[in-house]
Amino acid sequence: MSAIPAPLLSATVTLLIAFFYFYTGFRVGNLRAKHNIKAPACSGHPEFDRAYRVQPNTLEQMGIVLPLLWVATFYPIPWAWIAPLAAFVWLCARIVYMRGYMADPDKRITGAMMTGVCDLILLLLAIGGIALAWHGALA
Amino acid sequence: MSAIPAPLLSATVTLLIAFFYFYTGFRVGNLRAKHNIKAPACSGHPEFDRAYRVQPNTLEQMGIVLPLLWVATFYPIPWAWIAPLAAFVWLCARIVYMRGYMADPDKRITGAMMTGVCDLILLLLAIGGIALAWHGALA
Amino acid sequence: MSAIPAPLLSATVTLLIAFFYFYTGFRVGNLRAKHNIKAPACSGHPEFDRAYRVQPNTLEQMGIVLPLLWVATFYPIPWAWIAPLAAFVWLCARIVYMRGYMADPDKRITGAMMTGVCDLILLLLAIGGIALAWHGALA
Repeated sequence: MSAIPAPLLSATVTLLIAFFYFYTGFRVGNLRAKHNIKAPACSGHPEFDRAYRVQPNTLEQMGIVLPLLWVATFYPIPWAWIAPLAAFVWLCARIVYMRGYMADPDKRITGAMMTGVCDLILLLLAIGGIALAWHGALA
Repeated sequence: MSAIPAPLLSATVTLLIAFFYFYTGFRVGNLRAKHNIKAPACSGHPEFDRAYRVQPNTLEQMGIVLPLLWVATFYPIPWAWIAPLAAFVWLCARIVYMRGYMADPDKRITGAMMTGVCDLILLLLAIGGIALAWHGALA
Repeated sequence: MSAIPAPLLSATVTLLIAFFYFYTGFRVGNLRAKHNIKAPACSGHPEFDRAYRVQPNTLEQMGIVLPLLWVATFYPIPWAWIAPLAAFVWLCARIVYMRGYMADPDKRITGAMMTGVCDLILLLLAIGGIALAWHGALA
C-alpha cells in the first residue's frame, strides 16, 4: 500500500464517495417517481422520507470528511495512507447507515456512530499534519 | 484551448460555479424578504418554495461535480480539458434547470437530465484518470 | 505572517471550518436527543429548529467559501495571505451568526451580513487571481 502515493489513494476514495453520493440522489429521484411525490414537495411516503434524509445527511458528512481528508493528504503525518483508509472506512460506515436507516430510522445509529468515529480520526490526522507543517514552517 | 493548463480551466469553472451558487442563495434571501417569510420557516409561497429547492439542489449537485472535476483534473486522461468543459456544460444545465423550475416545477426535467449526463461524463473521466494513475503507479 | 506559505494558512482555516461545521452537526444531534425528536422528523421544538437551520446554512456557505478560498490560494494575487484571512473572518462571522440565531432568528442578520461581505471579498480575490493567471497563460 505504501507504494501507491497517498494523494492517489485519497483521490480514489473521493471518487468512490462522489459515486456513492450520486447513487443516494438517484434513489431519491427514483422513489419520488415510485411514490408519485411531485416537486417541490419533499415528503409524502415513509420510504421516500427516509431516502430523502440519507442523501443530505451524506452531503453534510461530506462537508466534514472531504476537507479533512485533503488537508490530511496535503499535510500528512508520516503514515500518509491512514487518512484515505479512514475515509474509506467512513464510506463503508455510510453504507451501513443507509441500509440501517432504510430498514428502520432507529437502526441508523450503528452507521452514524461509525461515521462519527471516522470523522474524529480524520480530524486528529488533519490536526497532526497541520501541526507538523506549522512546526516545519516556523523552525 | 490546449495552451491553457487544465487546472486553470477547472479553477475558472469552479469560480463560476461558486458564483452561480452564491446567486441562488441571494435569490432565496430576496424572496424571503419579498414574501415576508420569517426564519426559521422555509416555505410559505410557491415562488419562494421553488427558489428554496433550487439552492440546495445546486449544492447537492456541487457535491458530485466539484470532487469529480478535481479528481479528473489532478489525474487527467490525455485530453485534460474535457473535464472542465463538462463542468462548464453542467453549469449551463443548472441555469436551464433553475429557469425551468422557477417557471414550473415540471419544467425542471430538461435541466435535470442535462445535469445528470454531465455528472456521468465527469464520473467516467474521473474513473479513466484514476485507472490510468493506478496503472502507472503499479507498473 | 508572510513567512508561512499561503496554502498552509488556507489548510489551517479549512481545518477550523470543518471542525466548526462538525460542531454544528453535533449540536443538532444533541438537541434531537434533548427534545426527543425522532428521525426522520426535522422539526418539533424552536431550539432544535434553529440549530437545524444553522447547520445546513453553514454547509451552504461552505459551498461558496471553500471553492473560492482554494481557487484564490492556488491562483493568488500578490498578497496571498488575504484569502485565508478572509476565510478566517468568515468563520468568526459564522460563530456570530450561530450565537445570534440561537438567541433569536432576527438576530442572525449581523452574522449573515458579515458572512456575505467575506463571501464577496473571497469572490473578488478569486476573480483577481484567475484573471492574473489567464493573463500569464495568454501572454
